[in-house]
Amino acid sequence: MNLDKLQNWLAEHNVDAAYISNPITIAYFTGYEMEPEERIFALLAFKDAEPFIFCPALNVEEAKHSEWNGDVYGYLDHENPWQIIKNHVEKRTKSFKHWAIEQNNLPVERYNFLRQVFNNSDFDTNLSEFIDHLRLYKTPEEVEKLKAAGAEADFAFQIGFDNIATGVTERYIAGQIDYQLKLQKGVMHQSFETIVQAGENASNPHLGPTMNTIKPNELVLFDLGTMHKGYASDSSRTVAYGTPTDKQKEIYEIDREAQQAAIEAAKPGITAAELDAVARDIITKAGYGEYFIHRLGHGIGKNVHEFPSIMQGNDLVIEEGMCFSIEPGIYIPGVGGVRIEDCGVVTKNGFEPFTKTDKSLKYIPLRDKK
Amino acid sequence: MNLDKLQNWLAEHNVDAAYISNPITIAYFTGYEMEPEERIFALLAFKDAEPFIFCPALNVEEAKHSEWNGDVYGYLDHENPWQIIKNHVEKRTKSFKHWAIEQNNLPVERYNFLRQVFNNSDFDTNLSEFIDHLRLYKTPEEVEKLKAAGAEADFAFQIGFDNIATGVTERYIAGQIDYQLKLQKGVMHQSFETIVQAGENASNPHLGPTMNTIKPNELVLFDLGTMHKGYASDSSRTVAYGTPTDKQKEIYEIDREAQQAAIEAAKPGITAAELDAVARDIITKAGYGEYFIHRLGHGIGKNVHEFPSIMQGNDLVIEEGMCFSIEPGIYIPGVGGVRIEDCGVVTKNGFEPFTKTDKSLKYIPLRDKK
Repeated sequence: MNLDKLQNWLAEHNVDAAYISNPITIAYFTGYEMEPEERIFALLAFKDAEPFIFCPALNVEEAKHSEWNGDVYGYLDHENPWQIIKNHVEKRTKSFKHWAIEQNNLPVERYNFLRQVFNNSDFDTNLSEFIDHLRLYKTPEEVEKLKAAGAEADFAFQIGFDNIATGVTERYIAGQIDYQLKLQKGVMHQSFETIVQAGENASNPHLGPTMNTIKPNELVLFDLGTMHKGYASDSSRTVAYGTPTDKQKEIYEIDREAQQAAIEAAKPGITAAELDAVARDIITKAGYGEYFIHRLGHGIGKNVHEFPSIMQGNDLVIEEGMCFSIEPGIYIPGVGGVRIEDCGVVTKNGFEPFTKTDKSLKYIPLRDKK
Repeated sequence: MNLDKLQNWLAEHNVDAAYISNPITIAYFTGYEMEPEERIFALLAFKDAEPFIFCPALNVEEAKHSEWNGDVYGYLDHENPWQIIKNHVEKRTKSFKHWAIEQNNLPVERYNFLRQVFNNSDFDTNLSEFIDHLRLYKTPEEVEKLKAAGAEADFAFQIGFDNIATGVTERYIAGQIDYQLKLQKGVMHQSFETIVQAGENASNPHLGPTMNTIKPNELVLFDLGTMHKGYASDSSRTVAYGTPTDKQKEIYEIDREAQQAAIEAAKPGITAAELDAVARDIITKAGYGEYFIHRLGHGIGKNVHEFPSIMQGNDLVIEEGMCFSIEPGIYIPGVGGVRIEDCGVVTKNGFEPFTKTDKSLKYIPLRDKK
């Protein structure tokens, strides 16, 4: 279906052929996901002919047995892939004068090889903007995968909460999360390195899990995600271990209010900048604006960060089918940090989060390691 | 030191400036390792001026506190990075007519932005081949990191062997390896997904760990690696759980003989193709040549696969300081698979492996899960 849209776009823009080089884009159009490392992997699509996958000979059988129903052609390491591509194109169609490429992905070297081998063609049209725009709107099938990834993130939070105890390290808890995801849910890949931050560490959103141990009466921040059939989850929760200070409880409640207000405001018609402001204004009015140091959210799909960016200055109008995170945070050196994050999909009337883990402040009683 | 070599190369080739875009190359030259996702991250080096790092504003402090001692300049998301780069270059030097880029990395879009902003300059020189060549020869500091990564792989094998038992899944064992590496060694990243393959699964070198359970009297193949301070390990061992068949023992001993012969032959002066043939001839003479379906080895360093490729047709002469894998394999459908792999460094007189785990066939007695 998405491939039809690509072919329509080629016809509308008087482009004969597309050379698609980003493995994520290829997976998006074909269902065949592969990381070719240094080898050549491409999807070739045409205005007037059937598309085909070109890949290393090693991967041809795998591609043929994937979701992809079209042709697959391979090359051996000692062969010239560009000449083989040209031969297949010439057998398929007589129209390959004007090409479009993914300018934000294709390296100059491969661009030069294409221009040399197709020396009567031009490769001046950029496909990247069209593909970014297409990927903004998720199909129902994509939303189902994002929801399934969200359910895995909810499971991961439970593992994390269950493993909080005095004296265990952040890294131990992160390790338990990844291990139990693999063992109990068959999750082989996180969408990014699992973050567990206790106490003051949570005031630095870039810090990975350290060997610092959990101490009584502090906040513990989790930020984690999985990959489910090529789609990412990404969610954050902050919980109290023992009794946090009044200040910590205060910033938790402000952040929660900001996040809830943004979820309620997220619907077709609002702009990305306006949505960012909904949460930011609440935090600013409460006196903590300077501690909310990042955008409200980012798109999610096959990449854990993609378009749209929910931030100041972005006048993009939110529409049905867009998927993104809503994740206000307050990070105060010496006090700690709070972030509450759900990704979700914009529906006709609102925003449906992919993660369901409760957001009222969860109190975990003090305890020793099991 | 490596950066001196780059500056010498620029001078020799009458190139004024280099725009380096591959984060691995930047880490190689500067010691600062970062994944910028969609943002701009570059190292700019000059024939006649001091180099600088350009990166997102978010990362400026981190870069300044890294091993890098030079200047660091940033840009904010709403700023035009190309214009800011140009301003910094103009302040630094008057010579920026001829540029070199990494053609195998820089996407066409960024190449076009550079050409637009430096509209009196040319960007026709390719740096990629020079950098690939430079990275072929590891410094003593790099070799130390590769050895430390190898020691982590040796630890991982012990965890893997200790967890073999009747009825546990391949994925359970792989999970235990990753988890214990994190917990006991602080290894946060594998260099690739840990492979555990039992019985017939080992006849397919591309198959990840499955939910298949370990059964008595079969071979179990491990292929794993870690990242240590930006350098990769990669090693394989195959062990016997209970009593393998005579055929399985036979292919193990042939593979071991082939691997040992190649390790002894690896020294300055032999070509990559000749070295591949040392192992391949032994396996072929034993009647199993058709089951050794990949090259003998690949280079290793900051990437788990890099140059040199130890394969038929590669006439590169092996020299001191090159680091690569030696990993013959025999994969027989219906019988199983054997692969024995060490990475190491070529020394003045031979080859020093980074992994030390014993290679005589290890017999693990039958047992139930702990």
